[in-house]
Parts: sequence; C-alpha cells; structure tokens
Amino acid sequence: MRPYELTLTEAARAVAAGELSPVELTDSVLHRIESVEGHLGAYVTVLADAARQTAARAEKDIAAGRYIGPLHGIPMGLKDLIDVAGLPTTASSRVRAQAPAAHRDSTVAARLRAAGAVLLGKTHTHEFAYGLITPQTRNAWDHDRVAGGSSGGSAVAVAAGEATFALGTDTGGSIRVPAALNGVVGLKPTYGRVPVDGVTPLSWSLDHVGPITRTVADAELVLEALLTSEHTTSAAPEPRPAEGSLTGLRVGVPRNHYFDRIQREVEEAVRDAIDDLRELGAELVDVDIPMSEYIQATHWGLMVPEATAYHERTLRTSPELYSDDVRTLLEAGVLIPAADHLRARRARTLLRAAWTRLFETVDVIAAPTATSTAAHRDQRAVHWPDGTEESVPETYIRLSAPANVTGLPALTLPVGADSAGLPIGMQLIGRAFDEGTVLRTGRTYEEATRTPGRATLTAISLR
Amino acid sequence: MRPYELTLTEAARAVAAGELSPVELTDSVLHRIESVEGHLGAYVTVLADAARQTAARAEKDIAAGRYIGPLHGIPMGLKDLIDVAGLPTTASSRVRAQAPAAHRDSTVAARLRAAGAVLLGKTHTHEFAYGLITPQTRNAWDHDRVAGGSSGGSAVAVAAGEATFALGTDTGGSIRVPAALNGVVGLKPTYGRVPVDGVTPLSWSLDHVGPITRTVADAELVLEALLTSEHTTSAAPEPRPAEGSLTGLRVGVPRNHYFDRIQREVEEAVRDAIDDLRELGAELVDVDIPMSEYIQATHWGLMVPEATAYHERTLRTSPELYSDDVRTLLEAGVLIPAADHLRARRARTLLRAAWTRLFETVDVIAAPTATSTAAHRDQRAVHWPDGTEESVPETYIRLSAPANVTGLPALTLPVGADSAGLPIGMQLIGRAFDEGTVLRTGRTYEEATRTPGRATLTAISLR
Repeated sequence: MRPYELTLTEAARAVAAGELSPVELTDSVLHRIESVEGHLGAYVTVLADAARQTAARAEKDIAAGRYIGPLHGIPMGLKDLIDVAGLPTTASSRVRAQAPAAHRDSTVAARLRAAGAVLLGKTHTHEFAYGLITPQTRNAWDHDRVAGGSSGGSAVAVAAGEATFALGTDTGGSIRVPAALNGVVGLKPTYGRVPVDGVTPLSWSLDHVGPITRTVADAELVLEALLTSEHTTSAAPEPRPAEGSLTGLRVGVPRNHYFDRIQREVEEAVRDAIDDLRELGAELVDVDIPMSEYIQATHWGLMVPEATAYHERTLRTSPELYSDDVRTLLEAGVLIPAADHLRARRARTLLRAAWTRLFETVDVIAAPTATSTAAHRDQRAVHWPDGTEESVPETYIRLSAPANVTGLPALTLPVGADSAGLPIGMQLIGRAFDEGTVLRTGRTYEEATRTPGRATLTAISLR
Repeated sequence: MRPYELTLTEAARAVAAGELSPVELTDSVLHRIESVEGHLGAYVTVLADAARQTAARAEKDIAAGRYIGPLHGIPMGLKDLIDVAGLPTTASSRVRAQAPAAHRDSTVAARLRAAGAVLLGKTHTHEFAYGLITPQTRNAWDHDRVAGGSSGGSAVAVAAGEATFALGTDTGGSIRVPAALNGVVGLKPTYGRVPVDGVTPLSWSLDHVGPITRTVADAELVLEALLTSEHTTSAAPEPRPAEGSLTGLRVGVPRNHYFDRIQREVEEAVRDAIDDLRELGAELVDVDIPMSEYIQATHWGLMVPEATAYHERTLRTSPELYSDDVRTLLEAGVLIPAADHLRARRARTLLRAAWTRLFETVDVIAAPTATSTAAHRDQRAVHWPDGTEESVPETYIRLSAPANVTGLPALTLPVGADSAGLPIGMQLIGRAFDEGTVLRTGRTYEEATRTPGRATLTAISLR
C-alpha cells in the first residue's frame, strides 16, 4: 500500500513507530495530487514546497524525540474559508480574487498547526459555502458527477488520496453531503463546540467546522486536536480498543422525514447498515421526527438573511462578481422580512426542545445522510415517484439541515454503493455535546464491517 | 404620618415590630386609592376585598410568629402585563378585553406572593407597553401632565400613595421614565436577572421587570424578593448600616449623548447631584459614550420587529382593536427587512463590548434619566435650541434606551424639581449583574441628601 492510501490512524501509527517518515508520506500525497488533480480540481492552491518544509521539520523533531501526537507529520487540506496566516482566503469566489493574505490563523488552523499537521493547500468550496455542488470540483468516483458541497474540495481530496484528512464547514450539510457522495467520513460537531473564528461565515447561527476523513477512527483523532489548545503530549497514539459491541445502545430509526422521497438503493443500504447495528447489539426504536414540516422553512429563514447580512456591502458594490446561483440567493435574502426571520428563530427554539425530548428515548438516530447518490453535473432537478420534484440542492440539504437547525452532532460514514458504484452515506445524530456516542457507534460499525469480504470504500475510491 | 405615606422600609420595620398591622396599612392605602384614583387613573383593577383578606392572613401569621420578611403584609401594585393566577392580564388594551383569567402566576408574582406582599390591583401600562405616555393615567404632580410610560400606572400609584411599592417593565425606559417623571425610584435590573416568564413581552431581547419604589433602600428590598425563589426566613428586616461615604468609587460623567439636547433645569439638577456624589467621596471621571450615534437605530431595529412578531396574528385579524399609535408601530414592524434586524443585532454585540470596556475605567455612570420633565398631555413634539425637533416619545426614550440595548442595570432616583415643581431623575448605570454598586451609590446619595432642610420628594408627591 502506498503511503497516500493510508488512513490517518494507520499513517500516524507508522510515523510514531518510525516506519514512515513525514517527508515520504507528504511526497506520496503530493505525487498523488500531481497525477489526479487535473481531473478532480479539489484544490484552490497547493503549497508543495511549504508542505515539504513542514514535513522535513516534523521528521527532524520526531527523530529528536519531540513527537507531539497522532497528527504530527500528517498532510491535510483546509477548505478555503479557513484563514491561514500568510495566505489569502478565497472562498472560491471572484469577490476575493484580490484578497490580501490573512494576518493570523483561524483557531482551527492554529490548533492543527500546533498538533504538527502538514498543510498541503486550500481546497475548493462552493462559492462562499452557499451551495451543495462545488462546480470547480468533480466527484472522486465519477468525474461526470457532482462533488457535493459546499466542502466538495475537501471530501474529494480525502476520497482520492490527495490528503490524509481535511477540514470542512457545515451550515446545512456542507461537510456531510460531499463526504457521503464521495464515500468518506464527515463529522459536524455540536454547534459551538469547535471555534469558528477566522472562518468566513455563511450563517453564523448555523455554521460548524469539522473533519473529513477516511474512517471514523480518523475523525476522532482530528476532533481531539480541534478541541485541544495545547499540544504537549509526546506519547505515541494508543491504538484504541475495538468496542466490538453496541449492547445497551438505543438507536432511533425515523418513521418519517428521513426515509421519505429517497432513492431505493439508498434506503436499502442504510436499512442494511441499521440491521448491522442491531446485530452488533443495539436496540432499534422507531421514532417520530418532530415538527419535520417546519425544518426547511426554519433553516431557510435563519440562513438566508444571515448570509445576506454578511455580504450586504459587496452585494451592493460588486454584484457581478458572484456566481448567478449565489447572487440570486443573496438577493432573495434582502427581501426577507424581519418578522419571518424571527418566526424562524422561535421555531428553532421549539425544534430544539422537541429534539431534546426525542433523545430521552434513544441515544443516537440513524438515517440516510442524503436522499440520493451523486447527481450528474448537468442535472438540475430530481423527480420522485410520488410526482413531486425538487432541485438538486434542495434534495441534498433535506436530510442534513435538521442537525444544523438543532445544532446536534452528526456523523456520516459510508455504508455501501448504488448499482452505478456511487457511495451511500449513513448519518448518525446524537445528543448535544455527545460526539462520543456518535463516534463510538460509527467506529463499532466500521470495525465490524470493514472485512476483506466487503469492499472497503477507500480502496474503491483510489482505483 | 399616615400609613400610606410610609416608605416600604419604614412600613416593614413597623410591621415587624408589631407597631403597624398589615390590615391597618392596607386599609390606609385603599382609602388613599379611593380618594385620589378618580383624578389619577393609575389602576386597571383594584381588588379591595382580596387585598384585605391577604392582609388579614398576614396579620394572623405574623402574630403567630410566622413572619416571612420585609415584604410581609406590604401592599403593592403590579403592572397589568404581569400574570396573576385568576386575573386577566389586560395589557391596558381592547385586544385583551375578553382575555380569560391567567392560569398561573408569573414567576415574579409568585415570588412576591411567597414573600407575603399584598396585591392591591393591576396598574395601567401604555397599551402593550409600546409607548412612553400611558394616556389612561395622569402625572401624580400635575394632572395635566403625562404620567410617562409604559409603567405609568405603577409609578403614579407609588408616587401618590396608592401603593407602597409596585412592579414595572422596561424595554426602552418604561420603568425609569415614569419613575423619573413622578419623583420616585425605579430599577431596571441586568437583562436576564429577573425572570420574565408570565409577563407579556414587548421585545423579548430587551424586556426587563423591576421595582418602582419611594426610596433606593425600598428598591433593594423588592429586588431581593424578586431574586429569591424560597422565602423561609423569619427574621425581622435588619436596618442596613448607612454607608455614609463613596470613597473609592469612580463615577463616569458622560461628555456626550446624555447631556446633549436636554432641559437646562434637568442638567443643573443632575450636575448638582453628581457634585453631591463627589462630596460624598466619589472620584468623577469624564467618559465618552461609545457608538452613541448607533443607539437609537439599534434599539429600534431590535424592538420593532420583535414586537411585531408577537402581535402578528392579532394585527392581521383585529387591527382596529389597537390604539392608533401602537398599531402604526406594529405595522411599521412588518416592513422591516431581516437584514436590518440582523444589523441591529450585530451592532448590539459591538455596543455591549464597547460599554464593557467603558466600565474598565469607572464603576458607575451618572446621567439624567430623561431629557425633560413631564410634558403636557397634549404636547406632541419637543423643540431644542439647536433647531432640532423630536417627538415626545423619542425624547423620553433617548437617554434610557442605551441600558436596554446593553442590558446593563440602571437605577433612577429623584434629585430635584424644575421651576414648575416637576420632578427630575438621575440615572445610575452599572456593570452587568452589579446592581449592588448601583444601589449602594444611590442609597448613599439618598441618605446624605434626605435631610429636613431639603424637601423630600415623597412628601411633595403626597401634597
């Protein structure tokens, strides 16, 4: 196995054991970028020289016994909404074409830097994170399909071996949707858990930053670094004990909302995975998703005016610099009355309370991440058997938005593929600040099902 | 001195000492209501029988050694936005003409009930608290002048001896303005400090509940009861030691905003009172009020859409039931774009941070409470020497709104009268949750200046 194919957990173990040098790993990933980036377009900027220098310093430090922890010497991509000192933050937008370099790191960039990670470059976002396609980037599994968004660059980079891990942001599903569409793992932590300062906002009351990785175990390592402001450990990463069982875990299976109007193959794969959770010892509990008919209006009523408030000045001075789809959304935001926004804020309060009660009877909710696998790049709408139609962005956001409105932690992990070979993601949603249960559930599933008899999605993505 | 003339502190001491019975006190206040209410219109409802029953029970309990604390057996008025179980909450509005009785007490009503206070009745508010006049009520000092608002009924009742103390609410100055215009004390505590549940909202991010009393010492006693959910003490109220000195206290004196476009006699009285603070040992520090040019727009941008959101349904179904001035404000709220409201929210964040920095150099800010003494009932506008003009509500809210936008505690206390004998209030604003310093400053001033040589405003108000 070539170094760029390693998961973060595998690479960290090899680096800590002295079996793999950060320089060798970084070079392997940089070569992979060279060979596939022309087809994929995951990166806004690749910083090959700087990455090699950081890797060389990590190699030297580790050789001198100054090992920091599992991210030390591991190459990563950062979504280009995340400030890194000395680099412009383009938000993949012409509005930022002349943007000066950021003066200081965002908190997340500073923490990953302190953890010893090696920055490969900045990855593409749907312009200003305001969309679910990321048109500059192509799906890692089929170049005629959308990458998903808005963290499309990060998801494709991780899926295709162009980064060992990456960060994304998620306001309506922007970590989880592209992770699901590219067969990788994405975690949206609880609202407020990971600091967002120095990250260009889309909608400040819904924005989250989180990891995109190849495995759930990898996501745990990155989350730990994102929550740590001091990195002083010099211990090698402990291989965490396999959990093996989910006995005692109550998994909620939605009766409504999450399995309505979704692709048949998506439903089958997710229901199979939920059966696997039961076989691993979990108790399945049917649950009713509360106030589901208000989720979309609430999400929209919160997001659109906040996004417009941030862009108001540029929208007035240089509207022509935005892409048509983003400008249309921003202009729509100008027209939303304050009373509608306040109604959405009040609905959110009720939704949060209702979801809190839901978690009195279950520990985690399992559901599809997105209604559909990756759409063709020129597809505009989705037609459902019940005669309804929705736009591609609408369909991708429908199942991911609830965790933004409620602020609850949500993980997506790959659970199979459709007949065209396109990946399918399962979403695990937990209680506020209980990323632990969500990650433990995902990791137990991952360890139990990642057998030689089952295709590992990472391997497929690297074909 | 007749019992209705006593301050809360004096009455409580006499009740605890067995020198005054709650029944005697309540009867005295009820007789006073009978004799002056026809001219004043402070009350929506007077509950004479119920009040006498509560007073009789208090008398019995105290005689049996079950004395609860300083509010035990003391008659009070509650602004008719505050739910009391078994009574309708009319908000002084025709919209609530058929309102059913409230099922349960608001938290503040429950706490005062538990503290043993005797409810005399519900006092008039400017309709739904959305105004600064309270047209149903007349100023206690001059019946041709406005009561101020929106807690006009409570302030007039306390000033005229129709209640020993009362509660008001304050979204832009609605406790402080009528208290100042009627020569009594009003405290708007820190935002969030006193629970507002069961109180009809005007604008939930700016609303406060607080006491209106005859002295600062009285306000301290009421605040204490409002913050206490259990009343188990049976100790008599300790006469608090006189502070005597303000040595070490840094009092900020605004260079801008608070002394701009105010009546000359108001300025003189407040500057004299600030000199008194200096003579009492305080150090005066000139301060610049930050972002003062944004306060009005921020306050308006927060309040108006929130008020409209609450009234939205009734405004659609029965607009004719509102008074013209209130309906106009509510209809204006429908037209405010969410982007403007969000800009106000962001401005508030900046204003709060700037005021927090201001309090690094001072402990309390002293300023006028309102630009003007009580206006004539038919006066619509105020003309300033610089040629500018503002409406009466605008002028009354100008100096009180900053403490609503910032959420900081603010006290008004009487510091003199203009040449027409109308009272003038000084406002003391403190750090968040530091009601202690604000009250201590006010009480020290009050104790030092309430000498036989100086007219006590309470005595004047009872002429």
